[in-house]
Amino acid sequence: MNPSTSAGYQERQELELDVTERWARREDLALLTDFYQLTMLSGYYRSGRAEVPACFEYFFRSLPPDAGFGVFAGLEQLLDLIENLHFNERDLEYLTSLGTFDDAFLRLLREFKPTATVYAAPEGSIVFPQEPIVRVEAPLAEAQLLETALLNSLNYPTLVATKAARLRQAAGEDYVMEFGVRRAQGPDGGLTGTRATFIGGADATSNVLAGKIYGIPVRGTHAHSWVMSFEDELAAFRAYAELFPENTLLLVDTYDTLTSGLPNAVRVFQEMRARGHTGRVAIRLDSGDIAKLSKAAHKMLTEAGFDNPLIVASNELDVDLIADLKRQGAKVNSWGVGTHLITASDAPALGGIYKLTAVKEPGGNWEPKLKTSSNPAKSTDPGPRRVVRHWDAEGRPLGDTLHLVGEGEQAPGSSHPDATSAVVTYADRMDPTFLRRLEGVATSRNLLELVMVGGARTHPSPPLVEVKERATREVASLPEEYRRLRNPHLYTVGLSPDLARVKNRLIRKLSGLNGLVQ
Amino acid sequence: MNPSTSAGYQERQELELDVTERWARREDLALLTDFYQLTMLSGYYRSGRAEVPACFEYFFRSLPPDAGFGVFAGLEQLLDLIENLHFNERDLEYLTSLGTFDDAFLRLLREFKPTATVYAAPEGSIVFPQEPIVRVEAPLAEAQLLETALLNSLNYPTLVATKAARLRQAAGEDYVMEFGVRRAQGPDGGLTGTRATFIGGADATSNVLAGKIYGIPVRGTHAHSWVMSFEDELAAFRAYAELFPENTLLLVDTYDTLTSGLPNAVRVFQEMRARGHTGRVAIRLDSGDIAKLSKAAHKMLTEAGFDNPLIVASNELDVDLIADLKRQGAKVNSWGVGTHLITASDAPALGGIYKLTAVKEPGGNWEPKLKTSSNPAKSTDPGPRRVVRHWDAEGRPLGDTLHLVGEGEQAPGSSHPDATSAVVTYADRMDPTFLRRLEGVATSRNLLELVMVGGARTHPSPPLVEVKERATREVASLPEEYRRLRNPHLYTVGLSPDLARVKNRLIRKLSGLNGLVQ
Repeated sequence: MNPSTSAGYQERQELELDVTERWARREDLALLTDFYQLTMLSGYYRSGRAEVPACFEYFFRSLPPDAGFGVFAGLEQLLDLIENLHFNERDLEYLTSLGTFDDAFLRLLREFKPTATVYAAPEGSIVFPQEPIVRVEAPLAEAQLLETALLNSLNYPTLVATKAARLRQAAGEDYVMEFGVRRAQGPDGGLTGTRATFIGGADATSNVLAGKIYGIPVRGTHAHSWVMSFEDELAAFRAYAELFPENTLLLVDTYDTLTSGLPNAVRVFQEMRARGHTGRVAIRLDSGDIAKLSKAAHKMLTEAGFDNPLIVASNELDVDLIADLKRQGAKVNSWGVGTHLITASDAPALGGIYKLTAVKEPGGNWEPKLKTSSNPAKSTDPGPRRVVRHWDAEGRPLGDTLHLVGEGEQAPGSSHPDATSAVVTYADRMDPTFLRRLEGVATSRNLLELVMVGGARTHPSPPLVEVKERATREVASLPEEYRRLRNPHLYTVGLSPDLARVKNRLIRKLSGLNGLVQ
Repeated sequence: MNPSTSAGYQERQELELDVTERWARREDLALLTDFYQLTMLSGYYRSGRAEVPACFEYFFRSLPPDAGFGVFAGLEQLLDLIENLHFNERDLEYLTSLGTFDDAFLRLLREFKPTATVYAAPEGSIVFPQEPIVRVEAPLAEAQLLETALLNSLNYPTLVATKAARLRQAAGEDYVMEFGVRRAQGPDGGLTGTRATFIGGADATSNVLAGKIYGIPVRGTHAHSWVMSFEDELAAFRAYAELFPENTLLLVDTYDTLTSGLPNAVRVFQEMRARGHTGRVAIRLDSGDIAKLSKAAHKMLTEAGFDNPLIVASNELDVDLIADLKRQGAKVNSWGVGTHLITASDAPALGGIYKLTAVKEPGGNWEPKLKTSSNPAKSTDPGPRRVVRHWDAEGRPLGDTLHLVGEGEQAPGSSHPDATSAVVTYADRMDPTFLRRLEGVATSRNLLELVMVGGARTHPSPPLVEVKERATREVASLPEEYRRLRNPHLYTVGLSPDLARVKNRLIRKLSGLNGLVQ
């Protein structure tokens, strides 16, 4: 981390933002949407339903494979996108060219201004399946319009922050660098994605653009091409050491690590020592048997009198591989992880969804809504819902419970002594110990906070380092059984009896409706 | 396709481009790079080697699983990026804040202008492992600087265009729509990615932004939320049919497809018919057993007198699933494919690399370079290389051969009667029939074309529809054994004897060097 430099840079704002910085603030992205959102939008306007207050909630049904928790990321980009949401003349010209929409609708789009109220878990929170992480309350048309952009803003960052947190579990206290921009899914994969890896557990990145835009520490030294561009490896290492005597990290596998790269590196480090340099020596291994080569490197370097060498490993690293290399006693203390981190390659998409959970009809009360399905796992809960998280006296999370908004609501942070009587768990995720565990509740708090009113943030977003600190703190608070790398415990998310009652009533009512149409 | 509308929109340029359009043109992306490119760059300047002419080549070592060919995409974005490459004041301010670089280097960056000469396969070409697809000739420092941005620009689009082409093999003549923006890896995943799916095989997209920026046809109707926002499904369908009588595609699985969605849809279509509508009826299935439900839907609709209904399927579709549904006789004629297409979920990164293959020392001739490795598959070929593709009299590709530039070079398009004597194949990919097949060569041509000189395009890029047509035509020209969905033939890429000789000589020389340092 180099927060001073980053903060210093972040504060200077005299120069006008450039295109990439404005893109990162999500300007001019109103058309980042599925076409059906616009046809539905025009339908809501033409049928006079556009202004009906609606509640939509963002949640995912399952975590990535072998993850026992999620780390929520992307909220900042979502709020930027909503605040900057307007249809510019280029957008309207394009929509006109499609010939699908009438002039009245296009005039409405021209005048569109976001008005949404948004509740969200703080960015960096640990989150779990089935619980609302973001709740949007807005006129039906507006809430609908936000769907695609919201999902695009949250799914990928949350996926990658979660992957980075699992990687952090494997790497322990070692330094982790994200090296993925060359394999990221587009330039933004290496920008949004890098930001999410930093939140979830990476210490630094190779991606200079992410350094510039988000103040993330950047790292890196040289590639094989540096070595290949010289007559031989020794000349390349000597030139590098002369140019960067304070940061002479040498890549030792261009030709052969044991017979060429390491002996040449040792010779150059000895030459530097003879010239009076006393800094820590550093090498990088980018191919071959990392366990064996790192031990050999450590031996050669320490035998030559270079204590505690920095040994960086890269090359297709992933969670299991790092865990296994550490188990083998690999002498690596810094990991450069690219492809598998930035693309979350074992499951490269999070299936987060955004579902209508209530509309406010003229009477003025929320009318809960749900979607049923022949696949019961795809039935949704009615809403609006809130999430209460419960902790024991040591600050360990015990589980979350879902409640209808307004039902039994207490002041944030209040204790919740009746937690055990207020819960039914999802039948398909039933944990018989949950109710017993809830007897140990010391604190209960709402997970979702008010972050936006009238389409504008209610308060400035926290600095990125605070988001990262939250994620680190919350992951560390989880009992080990949720953090292990294989077969983690399922964290319990229970339904309140009131919510369960409303859900069952609606399912019965919808079954009745099916009969009506026959 | 709706090329007229798109072209009409694309031609209008009176209004200034907005932020997203300028991002799509890759403006202000000089820092889309790995930090080590900048440290190496400063090293090349300080060691006086920055201006040494260098040749780098882009290639990949293997195709995604079960792919028998690749479809090259992303060239357009790469050329945009190079043409727009400069360090703006914001970039320089950030780099200054890092404290790593001296003023002299920062002044050089401020004055940097791209000068590269670039040869590339035309976008939309079929491409194969081990062969250079892009060759960059530029001063060493500049060519090095381009590495990260080039890989980021080409790897993901080529991966997704290749995936789309495999999907097209599975879908046959059916309509394919890309629905992935909500699961894409960032907003750009749903932009660069959508463009690549269109090149590789998709007919349309749901992504409005990709429609605006690239003129790709956009499609979509309504979601479950439309149905849920009404009192019941029938009211929702009736409202939709009234609002969009020309395009009444009804999503029938919000509650229950067979007992609710389909009966309600049939009733609404009957009401429309009674009002005089005669258009083709259309439904979408988004859950459940697509084979069974599509057959049931087809039966109910045709028995009600609606011939040839449009039946769209979506929901976690992928290549194998579509192939299997078609094998089961599913009555689907339009496929909406999201997550698995836009993220290429079975292998979400293409391992394309960009390697130094030659430098021009003061003497004036290219000096070939290669990287060796204890893993022989990671040794590279020396260069500069060109690729010759060979076709039989029916226009079917027979294989490609790699040659040193200048070695036996003939006029483009000339026949290549000595092909069989000019080839050795990669030992690890030896196809004993290759030399025999080459006896049938009717035409041989260079794959790489000159596309950029002095950092500027040599000619305007072709329209996107032409790129798509090239991909369609070239994939169709491949014999079936390279296009099948499992265990496709390996397309042969052979080395010319001269190239093989130079490679072997360099490997021997490098082994000697290893000895020297002991």
